[in-house]
Amino acid sequence: MLTLREGAFVKPEAGQAQLNVAYCGICGSDLHILQGSEDKRMTLPSVIGHECSGVVGEVGEGVDGVKPGDRVVVWPVKSCGECPACKEGFGHVCQHLQVRGIETEGAFQSSWTLDADALVKIPEGVSLLHAALAEPLAICCHVVRRGEVKKGDYAVVIGGGPIGLMTALVAKAEGAEVLVSEVNEKRLEKAREMGLETVNPAKQDVPQRVQEETGGKGADVVFETSGSQPGVDTMVKLPKVHGTVVLVAIYGKPMTVDLKQLYYFEKNVVTARMQERGDMEKALRLLADKAFDADKIITSVLPLVEIRQGFDRCMDRGGCEVKVLIDCGNA
Amino acid sequence: MLTLREGAFVKPEAGQAQLNVAYCGICGSDLHILQGSEDKRMTLPSVIGHECSGVVGEVGEGVDGVKPGDRVVVWPVKSCGECPACKEGFGHVCQHLQVRGIETEGAFQSSWTLDADALVKIPEGVSLLHAALAEPLAICCHVVRRGEVKKGDYAVVIGGGPIGLMTALVAKAEGAEVLVSEVNEKRLEKAREMGLETVNPAKQDVPQRVQEETGGKGADVVFETSGSQPGVDTMVKLPKVHGTVVLVAIYGKPMTVDLKQLYYFEKNVVTARMQERGDMEKALRLLADKAFDADKIITSVLPLVEIRQGFDRCMDRGGCEVKVLIDCGNA
Repeated sequence: MLTLREGAFVKPEAGQAQLNVAYCGICGSDLHILQGSEDKRMTLPSVIGHECSGVVGEVGEGVDGVKPGDRVVVWPVKSCGECPACKEGFGHVCQHLQVRGIETEGAFQSSWTLDADALVKIPEGVSLLHAALAEPLAICCHVVRRGEVKKGDYAVVIGGGPIGLMTALVAKAEGAEVLVSEVNEKRLEKAREMGLETVNPAKQDVPQRVQEETGGKGADVVFETSGSQPGVDTMVKLPKVHGTVVLVAIYGKPMTVDLKQLYYFEKNVVTARMQERGDMEKALRLLADKAFDADKIITSVLPLVEIRQGFDRCMDRGGCEVKVLIDCGNA
Repeated sequence: MLTLREGAFVKPEAGQAQLNVAYCGICGSDLHILQGSEDKRMTLPSVIGHECSGVVGEVGEGVDGVKPGDRVVVWPVKSCGECPACKEGFGHVCQHLQVRGIETEGAFQSSWTLDADALVKIPEGVSLLHAALAEPLAICCHVVRRGEVKKGDYAVVIGGGPIGLMTALVAKAEGAEVLVSEVNEKRLEKAREMGLETVNPAKQDVPQRVQEETGGKGADVVFETSGSQPGVDTMVKLPKVHGTVVLVAIYGKPMTVDLKQLYYFEKNVVTARMQERGDMEKALRLLADKAFDADKIITSVLPLVEIRQGFDRCMDRGGCEVKVLIDCGNA
């Protein structure tokens, strides 16, 4: 259950900073928590939210990376540093990973006190509003990097939800030709407003279209963001010989996969989870470079008191919200 | 139906060579053809067999790569050179691939006339008997190369059939620590005779064993050669963070795959089909270097008149044949 209550200023201890939160976006994970499929990760009651921007208020002893007044975003990865994943240099998929705003307290509050080393400075020219997109965009930068997208590549994004659309924008910013496949016509309209090419698999044969557009070669890279069985059925058909499928969705149950389709042309499958710190820096750089129209991603901004309405809008599957931001009172 | 009949010497045309076949191994594909699942690839009647060694008898006009008396093996890949796969440099998975001995006539005959550029010379010190292993070993060299196995890696091979065991031997020759997982106790015994470490998943929890042996890290690379659902269920659990699953089996039907297991630690899946010419050269080099005991791989040698018995031995699922070679009369 989501409730709104009076918060409190928490004085930062050594190594901590107190953040005056400006905006925080609603993530799919937040919806899963509210719907009860990811809530076991939390200790209730808690404050969720991890896609935020804000301004540093106070800092604790020994903090020198940020100072009061700095505009920052939060890198949500909190890793143990001890497990085999951390030791191999992949702390973002730590065996004991804590996501700030899920396993720890988060950003849907006006004042958030947290580890100062989680803060990443916002570059000049990026507004606090746009900076709240940095976290989901960093996920997409990570996804695109895992797919090793190069200039001139032909990429297909299966699924036109927030992560699908932002993945398409990032891949396009990297110089790829991008096709978004989605069944919801409102989302397709949204994608086209963003300047993306689209296809509706209910109306057109996607493998055939990809074959035609690539001269029979197939896609260099395919991003499966739908999490659906039809998406998985399609993803194996689209890549070229030695092409790549990137699994982006979180598959709630085992899926049926036609492995022979991968085998025949030695296609590869890579997976992308979370983000590394460099991905967040890349996301901020894309925003600073105005690599795409960030305003088109933000479809609603609501005050903290209307957060329940924000969640409802995101959960409306017939709707076409991309990113709903909550104004936490310090914009 | 498999029948034996009188063959004929076919004079080589320009660019061809006539091969006096010494030995030819029975491949899983040959079994599938006989069982009726791969026979649509052929124009009947035909001669099958593609894992052979032999001595060049005559050569046609313009052939300068080989001469009469040369001891050779046959690279079975015949690609079109025109399709997108060929143009990208992956002719071994050509869109119009022909495998010599399947889509074309093959080696279960004493005299075989074929394109001379398919012949690869056998190095000094490798017998015609051992050289007949070069083709399936080349498949395994390709598999191990796709898995990017490095010295010191911990590798698991799921399935102890001929390709599984030879993959394990090649991976071990590359310096990996290798564990073979197989349910058939006779095959496990065979693997141990080859000097391989084994585990029976019916008796021991394989993921737990791999965790223990790798200090909780997981396997660097996992080769799924069983083609079975339990094999696919296990393969996703074994790799370390950013580790690799190599799909080696030909999956006759779509499989159920727990993609979330791959996602959590950003594991990768690559596929390996056929072989490149360099893989065959590598296989011959391993044989010349006596990287493993090739005699342990050859479990039966039968004359051509007993070929049906050879197929029966291979198809006996309770048996433990690894490689059955047919003596085609020119050893």
